[in-house]
Amino acid sequence: MYRTKPFVIFIIGVSGVGKSTIGNLLSKKYSITYFDGDDFHSKENVNKMSKGQSLNDEDRYEWLLTLNQLAKEQIKIQNCVIACSALKEKYRDLLSKDIEINVKWVFLEGSFDQILNHLNCREDHYMPVSLLKSQFKILENPVNALKIDIGFTPEEIVETIKKEIFDKSEFGLIGLGVMGKGLSRNIASKVIALSVYNRHVEGLEEDVAVNFKNEFSELSNILPFDKIKAFVISLQTPRKIMLMVNAGKTVDAVIDNLIPHLSKNDTIIDGGNSHYKDTRRRIDYLKNKNINFIGAGISGGEAGALKGPSIMPSGNKGAYKLVKPFLESIAAKDKNNLPCCTYIGKEGSGHFIKMIHNGIEYVEMQLLAEVYFIFKTIGKNPDEIANILDGWKTKTNSYLLEITVDILRKKDKRGWILELILDKAGNKGTGNWATVATAELGVPSTMIASALFARYLSSFKEERIQLNEKFASFKTISKINVDNMIKVYQLARLVNHHQGFKILFEASRSYGWELNLSEIARIWTNGCIIRSSLMEELVNIFKLTDNMMLNKNIIDEIKELKPSINEMVSQCVIEEIPIPCLSEAVNFLNAYTKADSSANIIQAQRDYFGAHTYQQNNDPSGKYYHTNWKKITHD
Amino acid sequence: MYRTKPFVIFIIGVSGVGKSTIGNLLSKKYSITYFDGDDFHSKENVNKMSKGQSLNDEDRYEWLLTLNQLAKEQIKIQNCVIACSALKEKYRDLLSKDIEINVKWVFLEGSFDQILNHLNCREDHYMPVSLLKSQFKILENPVNALKIDIGFTPEEIVETIKKEIFDKSEFGLIGLGVMGKGLSRNIASKVIALSVYNRHVEGLEEDVAVNFKNEFSELSNILPFDKIKAFVISLQTPRKIMLMVNAGKTVDAVIDNLIPHLSKNDTIIDGGNSHYKDTRRRIDYLKNKNINFIGAGISGGEAGALKGPSIMPSGNKGAYKLVKPFLESIAAKDKNNLPCCTYIGKEGSGHFIKMIHNGIEYVEMQLLAEVYFIFKTIGKNPDEIANILDGWKTKTNSYLLEITVDILRKKDKRGWILELILDKAGNKGTGNWATVATAELGVPSTMIASALFARYLSSFKEERIQLNEKFASFKTISKINVDNMIKVYQLARLVNHHQGFKILFEASRSYGWELNLSEIARIWTNGCIIRSSLMEELVNIFKLTDNMMLNKNIIDEIKELKPSINEMVSQCVIEEIPIPCLSEAVNFLNAYTKADSSANIIQAQRDYFGAHTYQQNNDPSGKYYHTNWKKITHD
Repeated sequence: MYRTKPFVIFIIGVSGVGKSTIGNLLSKKYSITYFDGDDFHSKENVNKMSKGQSLNDEDRYEWLLTLNQLAKEQIKIQNCVIACSALKEKYRDLLSKDIEINVKWVFLEGSFDQILNHLNCREDHYMPVSLLKSQFKILENPVNALKIDIGFTPEEIVETIKKEIFDKSEFGLIGLGVMGKGLSRNIASKVIALSVYNRHVEGLEEDVAVNFKNEFSELSNILPFDKIKAFVISLQTPRKIMLMVNAGKTVDAVIDNLIPHLSKNDTIIDGGNSHYKDTRRRIDYLKNKNINFIGAGISGGEAGALKGPSIMPSGNKGAYKLVKPFLESIAAKDKNNLPCCTYIGKEGSGHFIKMIHNGIEYVEMQLLAEVYFIFKTIGKNPDEIANILDGWKTKTNSYLLEITVDILRKKDKRGWILELILDKAGNKGTGNWATVATAELGVPSTMIASALFARYLSSFKEERIQLNEKFASFKTISKINVDNMIKVYQLARLVNHHQGFKILFEASRSYGWELNLSEIARIWTNGCIIRSSLMEELVNIFKLTDNMMLNKNIIDEIKELKPSINEMVSQCVIEEIPIPCLSEAVNFLNAYTKADSSANIIQAQRDYFGAHTYQQNNDPSGKYYHTNWKKITHD
Repeated sequence: MYRTKPFVIFIIGVSGVGKSTIGNLLSKKYSITYFDGDDFHSKENVNKMSKGQSLNDEDRYEWLLTLNQLAKEQIKIQNCVIACSALKEKYRDLLSKDIEINVKWVFLEGSFDQILNHLNCREDHYMPVSLLKSQFKILENPVNALKIDIGFTPEEIVETIKKEIFDKSEFGLIGLGVMGKGLSRNIASKVIALSVYNRHVEGLEEDVAVNFKNEFSELSNILPFDKIKAFVISLQTPRKIMLMVNAGKTVDAVIDNLIPHLSKNDTIIDGGNSHYKDTRRRIDYLKNKNINFIGAGISGGEAGALKGPSIMPSGNKGAYKLVKPFLESIAAKDKNNLPCCTYIGKEGSGHFIKMIHNGIEYVEMQLLAEVYFIFKTIGKNPDEIANILDGWKTKTNSYLLEITVDILRKKDKRGWILELILDKAGNKGTGNWATVATAELGVPSTMIASALFARYLSSFKEERIQLNEKFASFKTISKINVDNMIKVYQLARLVNHHQGFKILFEASRSYGWELNLSEIARIWTNGCIIRSSLMEELVNIFKLTDNMMLNKNIIDEIKELKPSINEMVSQCVIEEIPIPCLSEAVNFLNAYTKADSSANIIQAQRDYFGAHTYQQNNDPSGKYYHTNWKKITHD
């Protein structure tokens, strides 16, 4: 009958607003079982009430859970309607516990006088004015509800519920590119009533939504649109609309197209790779218009979108609550079956961590590329390399390792596909943004910058060919020992993950985001591109420390692995094999684990030419000194 | 008598405007020798004119140079006044050739009817209407002139000249910090009439300008201000005002304070370390108000400001012409005695190249720090290191090498000052900006990023101490061979300079700036922090190529030096001595000089998880391919 999974409608509002009337009528008209919440009170509560005592929150706790249980049982078999005043947010939280996505709230609303009048017209019911006053006092207006004025007739109200809940979609998605299509199919597979919209561009993008719906049988219940107004109207209020459009100006344009059709408390979720500063700006912009904006980093590529990505939402926490059931429903699940989706923090923190996720990803990819290049240089073919990497999976598995093995093995009649590919790496900007952010924050993310610059350098292919002719290559028999390559790779990955989480830590401190590093590691254990066995270890490590380099296990591991990477990097340098990211891992560790650096000379130079002053080792006051360096005195 | 060096006043304007009258009166009243330009025509010109033929530009060429020569001779001994119509810009360029800074233009202006009327009142002069018309036709209104309406009486006009030229300053400077003070003294030492302004901040900055003037005897002729309006009024029009205030919001605030007092064609020069994008924005903002804005990068530190810095001005080329004589006058001189100041390009290109200058500087400093650290690690003391570096000066000298030797030798009774300095490096932002710019431009400036990150990492001193305790240091007898250290250093500097100029080249291409790399190298040969013997070589190399790595001498040098740096980096890695910048130099070269990179695997990975597609080696069409990587097939 309906396009959604079984649901429970809670009819809520103050006493006397007409909840049972509406519940009963709805039940009769649409054959939905109706329950009056008041029938489920415990004996103790009934006794208390019969004595004229009012219930406190503790009394209500068990009762609300009983109703929650009732709803859970019902939706296993059918839809149902439950009447229950549910005046406070925390009551509603209990009623909808674990079944948020199945719950629809209908809030019957009227003014005090309207309801008093309403009550006085009813012969079977007596309510003292003081009680109604106390109900209004505790009432917390629900945000996530269909609100209906009791000035309408019961028939009209029931028709409104039918039109607004039964007929409309729960969730809207805009932008049917690779990711948008995957997510739409994912959403539909969760039996969430969905509307999708794609713009109409004459001759280029025509009937995209309709054609998409017709392409997959599982999409038979979605509502497709290419007119924005009709799309918005097709959504239940408050609306939840996810944007899967190109980051940048397009996001602003789509927002501006949406605004005239939206209502208070509607929520836009930006699931694209937007810049975190843009997300912060958009949150502020829409806040002024009473529209919520959630910036949600989404990782997982095409497959993740379809089967469950890792989702990193940020913005106003109250707004997040409105969309949480949907985002959690479509996210990947971790090994404890918890969704790889968690509220990250305020502002654009979700897009920030997605950006750093991509930075870590750049490095993971570059490390595999360098490992491959070393093996290739000493004469191994792709299948041999694949076999070696395949053997690493038991010790240090990751999605990127897995796909690299697949890639190395892929052949057609011309041979290995890999060897046909032009070695100019592209980038879509997040690695660049991550490098910029780390430079701005004052954090030494050397590996992300190095991986980014390796891609940039690869793109200067024509210059490389020119220079290759002018510089004779290194020619002797290689002395590289690849036996310990896995250790080299493991060590570099530890440094990469340290640097990545270190930026998160420093950003959190600078921006007051209160990021939970362990939770972030947890939602990165599945669905996303950088999921790995190491990430699973980090979930627990970051419960104990904010700096993984201070963890004893990590320290022991680094001590064991370090000699191998020293040897490898050293020999690659001698043999002129470019290994920028492996080198950075070593140099970072060598500097980071030493109390003394060479920065005293930098400070002296700055003081010499710019009078920038310097601090002294033996002066804990932090006082700044200036020396007139030019006069040379020997005492 | 006056506060400036000897000057020549050219009284200019169309025939009949009253040039001789004013010249004679000025001469009489202020005892300045007067010359009528018409008295200096050659016999040929006089003949031609007597035949009623008008002179063409070729005829005028020698005559204008004669007047230019006259002016040059005069200003050796005294001030003078020369009347000459000088209607075209190119005539004025010839008249002021090489003495731009000594020339004052007084443009007598009136409408056609006004001048015709003027002429008709004079008995001794007859001029046909047609001749006056032709004069108006060729007249190019001078921008850089005091303009006086001939409606005033000759006495009034002469008084105006006295008041506006004799009594006012030629140049204004705002902001008396370390750099502002140095530049002011530099300007005053060139006998340029100067007004200086510093804001008044109760209890913090009071009477700064007056006190500064009183501090140095050579400043007895400057005009000090702490009121902006009086400061502006004290300047000759069109005004030239240099800002030496903190980059960022202060610059905008000072501009907004200035605007109400400025007139059309006044020019503001921002000599601070402003961001190039801010400079572009300010040029556009002020263009709308008919005010010129020149962004001028200035390098040289305190000593450079005082004795002659390297100046990198950009913006509108016409506006630059107005301030050129002053900037060139205070700039350092290269070995051919040309000013280390040249017009860089439009927009914020001057501040862009200053930013990259500082990026190169960061690397040069970091390389010396790494060299020092290696020497220190193997047990050499600062004096021993100083002696070694001192010996390098004949082969590869630079300002930074020189000051590092001074620093290493500096002692007080506690010992070497250097060893007292806390090794946490500060930064003022330009290295950060340079890293951001190169990330945004897609250029692999690995060494600048590396030097920046080395400073950042040094600032995490407390963490380094903590980790130092947990990670045992490497302990064996060092096998590092420092005999070839100079080669290591030279090679790394070549890569640094390549990367720095490469960003300039790519920025120039991206932004259409038409940067002249050889000229940029030339103005960096003196006055600035990165002046060096290598920079002098680059002046000629960049006349031949935009990419120094393609120069035969550089290639030969790299081939000779490379084995030494390979060996050094390799051994430092084994011995766990951090050498991030040296490592980057090696890795960059190893990647840049190889036709093949490992980026094919990056492209395959991106295509695997994100369907980003890739190009093929054997397909010059550049077509994009996509592979379904998952299915493994072995043919």
